[in-house]
Amino acid sequence: MKSLLIIADGLGGRPTDYKGKTCLEAANTPNLDELARRGSTGLLDSIGPGVRPGSDTAHLSIFGYDPEKVYTGRGVFETLGIGMDVREGDISFRTNFATVDENFILRDRRAGRIQEGQEELEKALQGLKPSQPGVEVLFKTSTEHRGALILRGAELSDHITDADPHKTGVKVTEVKPTTTENSAEKTAEIVNELVKKSHEILKGLPINKEREREGKPPANILLLRGASMKPDVPSIEERYGVKGVAIAAGALYIGVARALGLEFKRAEGVTGRADSPIINKAKLAVRELKGEVDFTFVHMKGTDSCAHDHDAEGKIAFIEKIDEVIKYFLDNLDWDETNVAFTGDHTTPIVYGDHVSDPVPIVFAGPNVVPDEVDEFNERSVLRGGIGRISGQILPILLGYSNRLKKFGT
Amino acid sequence: MKSLLIIADGLGGRPTDYKGKTCLEAANTPNLDELARRGSTGLLDSIGPGVRPGSDTAHLSIFGYDPEKVYTGRGVFETLGIGMDVREGDISFRTNFATVDENFILRDRRAGRIQEGQEELEKALQGLKPSQPGVEVLFKTSTEHRGALILRGAELSDHITDADPHKTGVKVTEVKPTTTENSAEKTAEIVNELVKKSHEILKGLPINKEREREGKPPANILLLRGASMKPDVPSIEERYGVKGVAIAAGALYIGVARALGLEFKRAEGVTGRADSPIINKAKLAVRELKGEVDFTFVHMKGTDSCAHDHDAEGKIAFIEKIDEVIKYFLDNLDWDETNVAFTGDHTTPIVYGDHVSDPVPIVFAGPNVVPDEVDEFNERSVLRGGIGRISGQILPILLGYSNRLKKFGT
Repeated sequence: MKSLLIIADGLGGRPTDYKGKTCLEAANTPNLDELARRGSTGLLDSIGPGVRPGSDTAHLSIFGYDPEKVYTGRGVFETLGIGMDVREGDISFRTNFATVDENFILRDRRAGRIQEGQEELEKALQGLKPSQPGVEVLFKTSTEHRGALILRGAELSDHITDADPHKTGVKVTEVKPTTTENSAEKTAEIVNELVKKSHEILKGLPINKEREREGKPPANILLLRGASMKPDVPSIEERYGVKGVAIAAGALYIGVARALGLEFKRAEGVTGRADSPIINKAKLAVRELKGEVDFTFVHMKGTDSCAHDHDAEGKIAFIEKIDEVIKYFLDNLDWDETNVAFTGDHTTPIVYGDHVSDPVPIVFAGPNVVPDEVDEFNERSVLRGGIGRISGQILPILLGYSNRLKKFGT
Repeated sequence: MKSLLIIADGLGGRPTDYKGKTCLEAANTPNLDELARRGSTGLLDSIGPGVRPGSDTAHLSIFGYDPEKVYTGRGVFETLGIGMDVREGDISFRTNFATVDENFILRDRRAGRIQEGQEELEKALQGLKPSQPGVEVLFKTSTEHRGALILRGAELSDHITDADPHKTGVKVTEVKPTTTENSAEKTAEIVNELVKKSHEILKGLPINKEREREGKPPANILLLRGASMKPDVPSIEERYGVKGVAIAAGALYIGVARALGLEFKRAEGVTGRADSPIINKAKLAVRELKGEVDFTFVHMKGTDSCAHDHDAEGKIAFIEKIDEVIKYFLDNLDWDETNVAFTGDHTTPIVYGDHVSDPVPIVFAGPNVVPDEVDEFNERSVLRGGIGRISGQILPILLGYSNRLKKFGT
């Protein structure tokens, strides 16, 4: 049997979201309700009760990996997510082009969300090298001011702080080791040197001269953060003996999936934003599940983005778009041979506008799921659900329904 | 947002408590029911299913600390609870004045629950010193026969047994090391010496001569038990970034709260007994929550004490007194800005008269809690509740509702 895991990022909400209802309650979702009617519902703490999840740690836990044990930091999901080749011992970073003055005082953390010239900036930074011999730098831009960087060499450490102060008007933060290991001290020194050198390389580039003439903040420094090595984990295939593909658009989710050995497939035209044609993810997932893969992971981001922007109407509209995706699955999946889980990776309420630890509704449906009596899908209705309240482990539970787990004991 | 955690000690009960009902079911609790109607209910295993909790371990777990990892023993909560200054490396003990004959056979474990002379006894024991150089003894009485003692010096260990045999007619127990460390052997020797010396010091005191003349058991020995160092844990403020106060009367609860860095505040006239004016705790809590603290912990003891005494009617009456406290909170809290949890630290059924592992009902209420359909608060009604069954972690869950948790991951 096949398995389909669908995650709507930041799906969960609170009664304060929209006129006394959560966005899921306020949205018109006949197809999610049909999924609930067919299946069994409950509450998911993606990591555990009282733990406030990041998207990366939440996904690890949903895939059955304990983030307390395996999480190394965000950087590696960024480098993997934008398609860089990450090797053992590599230190990965998220980067952003930013704007500083001559005294390294931060003026704009995103260089005015620079839209153009990524190719020129990337090319210029190929000359970025530390004075320390034997250490290689790999850099790649992604969207707008974003990019990722790999330090490759012997005896490097990811136990260092960030260069990004996360606010303007202050100096770029000096990176420091967080342990007393020599490797951490050495890596911190290298990163501080690279940040300074990036300013030397970038400040005189034609694109920045042009931006300054136009009164726009120049992309005159590269800030590094989220230092991390690749998590030392068995792949999903090694662990569960199944082949899976990941269909997502955001680099982070692609990165997590790749770190766990899933093959990434891009659906046509998707952007990771609320206007993304997510129906194409459903079409691709159905095609994949008709092929050789055992399971497919589909990720949709818009719910979380709208909630971060305190945009209840946007989140409701995106949930209704997800409902169309669910309709496509209801109409086109082989329901005799497929078990499905639909949930969020965490709750992002409208008023607070960031992740919270409140559990998120979940539904399992398929031929092997014992249905409960819940026939609506939202934070309130699933309180009566048959799944109860569970912590992470959604992929193994789903593979269990599809008879794809190895036995523990005899 | 603010958070209020209310614990009624030993709240949970069994159908055998009172005419086929638990005490919570038998009690008239319109305000607890209103809290349930507004909020979401469920079952709490304070440590975990099938674990029979002490009050100290249960509270640690409710505050989000794993007692399997951090619990060192009871003594330190007693020394902290009665206001002694506990330093790193100190070994804390609970003590009781007891009565022995000339052969150290225990005649009364509590010296007839001695009511008078605590000052004289405490003063006399300031002369208690081991022959071992460099080890200091600090002793303080609390109520009746109770007190606490600190051993301070280099290379002491809390890995030793108790001097109290917990029954009369037998010799005072020789304290033994429970590990092979030298420090444990040395500490056991010191404690044995101190117990003997306490008899020498106490037996001839005027107060004991007077008691003997009156036919009362003299307080002629000090028994030490519950050896423990301060748990090596980050404070609640370090861990969660919030400032909290504790409002309690029993030394143990004050001690646990202080061990976790909470500031203790005494409500007017409270005693820790069933006749305590607990409404004053509610008034103080509301005042505190209007000030600068992020959260307040309120503890009420009477439910547990009555259950230990097999007194169903007493427990029911105390629950109805708690219901008045809840009414005060319903009327006086800022409910737009406060999330509340109410539960017990464990179940203490009337027939058995001691803590059991049965889960205890819990309710969360506040602006960010998705309400369930339960509108009564007792062991039976919450089985249909939306919180499900959770293990410990009540403070972090509550702080999560109040948007006060740090994110794990990005």
